[in-house]
Amino acid sequence: MGEPLPSLDLSTGLSVRLAARSKALTTQTSGLAPSYLQANLLVLPSRYAPDFRLLCARNPVPCPLLAESTSPGAFSELTSHLPLAAARDVDLRHDFPRYRIYREGKIVEKEDLEAEWTDDHVGFLIGCSYSFEAALAGQGLVPRQVLHGRNVPMYRTTVPLCPAGVFTEATMVVSMRPYLIEDVERVRDVTRGFVATHGEPIDWGWDAVSRLGINDITTPEWGEKALRLDRQGDFDETEEGYVPVFWGCGVTPQNAVLAANLEGTVMAHAPGHMMVCDVQGHQICGL
Amino acid sequence: MGEPLPSLDLSTGLSVRLAARSKALTTQTSGLAPSYLQANLLVLPSRYAPDFRLLCARNPVPCPLLAESTSPGAFSELTSHLPLAAARDVDLRHDFPRYRIYREGKIVEKEDLEAEWTDDHVGFLIGCSYSFEAALAGQGLVPRQVLHGRNVPMYRTTVPLCPAGVFTEATMVVSMRPYLIEDVERVRDVTRGFVATHGEPIDWGWDAVSRLGINDITTPEWGEKALRLDRQGDFDETEEGYVPVFWGCGVTPQNAVLAANLEGTVMAHAPGHMMVCDVQGHQICGL
Repeated sequence: MGEPLPSLDLSTGLSVRLAARSKALTTQTSGLAPSYLQANLLVLPSRYAPDFRLLCARNPVPCPLLAESTSPGAFSELTSHLPLAAARDVDLRHDFPRYRIYREGKIVEKEDLEAEWTDDHVGFLIGCSYSFEAALAGQGLVPRQVLHGRNVPMYRTTVPLCPAGVFTEATMVVSMRPYLIEDVERVRDVTRGFVATHGEPIDWGWDAVSRLGINDITTPEWGEKALRLDRQGDFDETEEGYVPVFWGCGVTPQNAVLAANLEGTVMAHAPGHMMVCDVQGHQICGL
Repeated sequence: MGEPLPSLDLSTGLSVRLAARSKALTTQTSGLAPSYLQANLLVLPSRYAPDFRLLCARNPVPCPLLAESTSPGAFSELTSHLPLAAARDVDLRHDFPRYRIYREGKIVEKEDLEAEWTDDHVGFLIGCSYSFEAALAGQGLVPRQVLHGRNVPMYRTTVPLCPAGVFTEATMVVSMRPYLIEDVERVRDVTRGFVATHGEPIDWGWDAVSRLGINDITTPEWGEKALRLDRQGDFDETEEGYVPVFWGCGVTPQNAVLAANLEGTVMAHAPGHMMVCDVQGHQICGL
């Protein structure tokens, strides 16, 4: 895992971006710059951009589109889909702590986006559920993985996305945070207004695991497993009553890219390793 | 079924609304006023309106919100969510050929909305897939039920909606039109731009039946069964190669109301018996 250097300023979106840009920060970003919006990345050859915009429009809960390259090739100039600029002083090629590169539908080892980025690539920023964790904490509902300084567990589900052009046969990815069953309605209320960053949960409770077609709650496909939520029988007494709560997740576009078997080079962030924006949750909550 | 009187003018949205308002038209509306947008109805006690707006925003493919009452109680003054007015000279209590009324979550026999409508009721218009049938016909892809003058078959699926407030545990409803497998990509292309009226199909092919959790393709939950698409083995030679193609359906809100077990009186249209708007498909296609 590795902790960021304690001397780093990680209190604002810009400071986290600069830390990532300088390679001082390479860790997951849950808990950093509390209240600032965090964003997922997907970078596509321009011919796939219209279909991807439509995929986001048809599936706004897992794929809330925050901003995109103003024109093919742009990595610093973004058109915001929010009422205010998502981020100024930005470089999509460097401002995430870690990246993933897909070539012909397969992950490659490299992470150097500057070497891969062409004049034909279009970058998209998609809202991340880390954005409402400060609001949850403010209500005494600190997410488990924030307490533990870990990445959130993320799972592939069998819930189909509404297809859009080349993007067919894709399913939703979800993030999971355990909560006491009696707190779930409050958790729903706190996160409901964050429509640009997945909003309220899509499902909750132990029955949701099979309902969502999650293969194994102890083995998330991305991120880190939830400590002491390995399986229903694994609680100690102080944790009795906790249930998994699932949100739409911005790794869904990467899952959709894999399902669509796109040609060419596709770039994305490493799940959990987000870019932090300049916008704060309270500025857009409810929009 | 019953045919509308041949003397009725049913060529525009207004003429169909006036025919319904005068009770001259009580049939399903597929094929009427070609190219004009058709709309589903849901009328809720005002306390449920914010959650319903959010349900539509989170599930825009089955629930594309076209317009709503300007204020609680309004049945003639609508706020459009399209770039132009959905319909002028409108009365939501009379302009659908048939209605359904739900009381405490159960369908009641009455259909008289005027007697039930209170100052607290908020009406919502949701896009209907009948709106793109003229565009399909224009490409030689006339839907089967239009040829036969029948209602479209509609099915309850197990695909979960993204919940919103009181609206939990609801699933998507789909409409179905059979097409030759080799025509499906063209069907997708023609309907893709109709984002306000369900857009491109959500799934297609015989495998989709089980994938969507459809109970029995021969017995739609609403509308009429597709002639000669009773089951895979039931084709004659001329129909070999047809597969079911499924779209999001604006009966989904009624299914969501039933799942949410809402208190009070909820009103809706009878599935397939739509209000026709003043807007034509080409005016908003792609928006």
